[in-house]
Amino acid sequence: MVPCRQYKIAIVQLQTSCQLKDNLVKIEKFIRVAAQEGAKLIAFPEVMNIIDSHTPSYSESDGGETFRLLSRLAKTLGVYIHGGSWSETIPASKKHYNTSYLFDDKGIVVGKYRKIHTFDITDPSGQIYRESDTVTSGQEVVVVETPLGKLGFAICYDLRFPELHRLLALKGAEIIFNPSDFNLMTGKDHWEVLLRARAIENGVYMIAADQYGQNAKMLAYGNSLVVNPWGTVIARAGDGEQILYADIDLDGLAEIRNRMQTLENRQSEVYRLSENAQNVARNTDGK
Amino acid sequence: MVPCRQYKIAIVQLQTSCQLKDNLVKIEKFIRVAAQEGAKLIAFPEVMNIIDSHTPSYSESDGGETFRLLSRLAKTLGVYIHGGSWSETIPASKKHYNTSYLFDDKGIVVGKYRKIHTFDITDPSGQIYRESDTVTSGQEVVVVETPLGKLGFAICYDLRFPELHRLLALKGAEIIFNPSDFNLMTGKDHWEVLLRARAIENGVYMIAADQYGQNAKMLAYGNSLVVNPWGTVIARAGDGEQILYADIDLDGLAEIRNRMQTLENRQSEVYRLSENAQNVARNTDGK
Repeated sequence: MVPCRQYKIAIVQLQTSCQLKDNLVKIEKFIRVAAQEGAKLIAFPEVMNIIDSHTPSYSESDGGETFRLLSRLAKTLGVYIHGGSWSETIPASKKHYNTSYLFDDKGIVVGKYRKIHTFDITDPSGQIYRESDTVTSGQEVVVVETPLGKLGFAICYDLRFPELHRLLALKGAEIIFNPSDFNLMTGKDHWEVLLRARAIENGVYMIAADQYGQNAKMLAYGNSLVVNPWGTVIARAGDGEQILYADIDLDGLAEIRNRMQTLENRQSEVYRLSENAQNVARNTDGK
Repeated sequence: MVPCRQYKIAIVQLQTSCQLKDNLVKIEKFIRVAAQEGAKLIAFPEVMNIIDSHTPSYSESDGGETFRLLSRLAKTLGVYIHGGSWSETIPASKKHYNTSYLFDDKGIVVGKYRKIHTFDITDPSGQIYRESDTVTSGQEVVVVETPLGKLGFAICYDLRFPELHRLLALKGAEIIFNPSDFNLMTGKDHWEVLLRARAIENGVYMIAADQYGQNAKMLAYGNSLVVNPWGTVIARAGDGEQILYADIDLDGLAEIRNRMQTLENRQSEVYRLSENAQNVARNTDGK
């Protein structure tokens, strides 16, 4: 793909069911429509392929069924696809990760991110969540350079940790994906405000495809959003499954950054934020 | 003062003029009213004592005119006063800082903070600000333990740096002051969202007294806010000078933190955020 500073993206809001096959059929339809409409990049929510009451009821390794579908469609249609997330199994260790894959327009994986902050909270209704019981935390902060800009990765609960988004921006991210299955009870009060804050404080686009409505685990908030680097919501999904479109403008982003100078005005004399060097080395070597 | 988990605070929204004496008279009136109304803690905006087109046209050392007024009133009325900020001069070095002082109910300074991030931006109207031309950056992250809770300090533009607020929370802050003279052009889009995000991500109260209206330097946004640790705006000032009251509940704060576990769920295996150790040592020794 030729480098592109202005382009259309598509964000797909899903209500993923416990039936893998049904979900994959639906995903393919959405991708075909979005590509037809001219989107160069199509983004999905967290746990896009299956949501079951027992997690992970289905999990796949690199090259599994969901992986192959997205790879094939990305190549066939010549679009980038951000595969929100699904459960990834490591056959050797039997570990499960909550993993995002980015496929380029040739169907090749050019980015892969394992959710760092697992969702361990008690929501306002008293419901307890312990994602860490079944999901291992990722250890790598991921930014990939593409013809569509420098793309940073986060997933759902990661949104509450400004350290991660700041590190993504310091590594060059211009666009940060935050695919989610965001709880209605927290989403109504925290979703938009945190997405807007991450955009403002880092001068980035936030691309946040969310699950909508009742799924096996809970009621999801929907309200998939695209926020520009000034912090303005430029696209918002209504109720139900749908495709949301927005225009990315990386020159506009550069202009905002030049005015606000937030990353330059950090005071590294006073505080230090860094990735753990051991993890950086381990992740680079060990994959 | 007896330790207090629930109490009333007062936030004073000002339109500070270029006349020091007039401003001090007005400040005294507001303090007397707020104390009469039962506020245990009274908070003011940035540059509370004078705003002139040439900054700093007036600057004072510890024990200066503004300092003495607040100290005397705090002691007389038996209230804590957070003196938003004013220009502090260091006689030996001729340096100026943008400094907050916290006076306890005996009139003693129990907290002092020098603004870390000076305001160096170009706003959307093209207006250029270079606070660093006249103001030296502070080097210390300040949290003080009081009978009214653990109080953290920030000033205005500091709001754009989540690193600082995270460090304040990690040092124990339950309430963070963000006194401001916030530009209308950025305030309308960023003020509330950033204050709410800092509250949510750290589980803290944000106490944000702001300047209002035309002052010598610019148009200030007003909209002084108090945000609770769930991120809800619990008090908001309208137009003009006024006192805003809100109820602080530190037990409610503890309950939210216990549910959300955000500080505990940080992944220090992946990233590290710390104060610069040299500065911590220097600030402890050098004052």
